[in-house]
Parts: sequence; structure tokens; C-alpha cells
Amino acid sequence: MRLRIDEQMKIDHIGIATEKASDAAVWQQLLRACDPHVEEVADQGVRVTMLPFGESRIELLEPLHPDTPVGKFLAKRGPGIHHIAVRVENIREELERLKSNGVRLIDEAPRLGAEGCLVAFIHPSSANGVLLEIVQHQQ
Amino acid sequence: MRLRIDEQMKIDHIGIATEKASDAAVWQQLLRACDPHVEEVADQGVRVTMLPFGESRIELLEPLHPDTPVGKFLAKRGPGIHHIAVRVENIREELERLKSNGVRLIDEAPRLGAEGCLVAFIHPSSANGVLLEIVQHQQ
Repeated sequence: MRLRIDEQMKIDHIGIATEKASDAAVWQQLLRACDPHVEEVADQGVRVTMLPFGESRIELLEPLHPDTPVGKFLAKRGPGIHHIAVRVENIREELERLKSNGVRLIDEAPRLGAEGCLVAFIHPSSANGVLLEIVQHQQ
Repeated sequence: MRLRIDEQMKIDHIGIATEKASDAAVWQQLLRACDPHVEEVADQGVRVTMLPFGESRIELLEPLHPDTPVGKFLAKRGPGIHHIAVRVENIREELERLKSNGVRLIDEAPRLGAEGCLVAFIHPSSANGVLLEIVQHQQ
């Protein structure tokens, strides 16, 4: 059982805060990433540019307004890694497991993210200062 | 050719700066990561705790002294994501390719990293503020 779950849990994407979506070309050159998929996630006030490479993705996050989570991150820290997202098979089960282990959650229930995925964030205070996202893909 | 290379280039590990190696237990719980491999990389003044999960790894970086790259990072920014490492097939060819494309390199030649890998760092100014490492595993 444990091995099966370990295989499922892998890095879905790395979220990078940026001021300009044109940075997609930088990542296409660096990582030979594939052509990007661009989408606005109104709920988060962000334009998402998803760049597949290998089995994972780079997610560029450009704020639609300064007064958004990514806008505030950029103002405070400048461009750089914003979060890591890990793919899980069943996000509700995973949230229950984490909560019962005392992990501090930002989202107690999943919400809709880019590409129709279900997503939830774990608080950095429970993850070595890292903003960790869990993602369930929906067919 | 392109597809073959894309398959090779994947996230090797995510480096996280931490003040205490005991944080390994945090990641084992969060990601159901496997038992850690611990190693000191004297060249970098760092104790490395490598936690495999799925096809990737979390690399916890604990400085051996405050006056090391990771020690300075912690003093300035606190615990959190330090770098992303991408696996490549041939690190020397990759460094040549990046250099000829005007990418700013920290290491123009590969050096020895944890677990006997060849590693080189790309400057954050060429990667959206992200410290990017490329890694070639040696059999």
C-alpha cells in the first residue's frame, strides 16, 4: 500500500512569482520546456503560464493586481519560487490525514485551481517555511 | 530528439534550507517520504538530508557553520526553498548550451555534489530569481 501511494505523490509543479509572463521564454530556453498553456485564475488574481517539462511543470505566476497574494509576495521578496505543488490521488483524504497529524492548513477544503484541478495549500509554519500545495487532477 | 531530451530533464530535487536536520520527520509525514540519506558536503559547508518521494527528492540543507552559503541564506531569509535541481544527461554539454545562449552561470565547470553527482549552479539573475542547479548522476 505504501509503495503505491509513494508513486502517486510526486512534484506536480513549481510555482514561480514573476512580474512578466514573457519570462516563459527564459524557462523554455533553460529547461527546454514545451509550449506554455496560459490561463487566468480570477479567484487568486493571477495569470498562470504553465510550462511542461519532463514529467513536471513550471508555473509562472503574474499578478493581475498588486493587491493579490502573488502581488504582495513580489513587492516583499521580488521574483522567485513561490510554492511547490505535490500531486496526490485523493485530496480530501490527504487533507484529513494531514489535519489529523496536526499539520496547519490554509485550505481545510479543496478549491478550484488552474486547469480544473482541485488544490489546497498547507501553511509554511508546518513545512519548513515552504508554501506547499497539494493537487488532485480531475479527468 | 527533442522528446528524448525532455524526458531526461526532470526535477531531481528541491533544496530546502533548515536550521535542524530533525525537520526530516516533518517531510516524511507531509509527503510520506522514504527514509533519509544523510551526508556532509564539506565543499559547501552543509549537512544534506536527502528524502526520496515518488520520483524526486527533498534535500534538507543544514549549515555546518553560519559563514556558509546556506548559513547566510538562513540568516537573511529564514528557512524555506533554497534551490531547484534539474537532472540532465550530460552536464558539460548542458553548460555549454546555456553559456552559448547567454545564460549567466555560477559554475562554468561541474563540481562534485551529494551522492557523487556532478552539479553546477545557474545564477538567479538568469532564472527569474530562482537558484537553479543542474545535476548529472554518475553510475
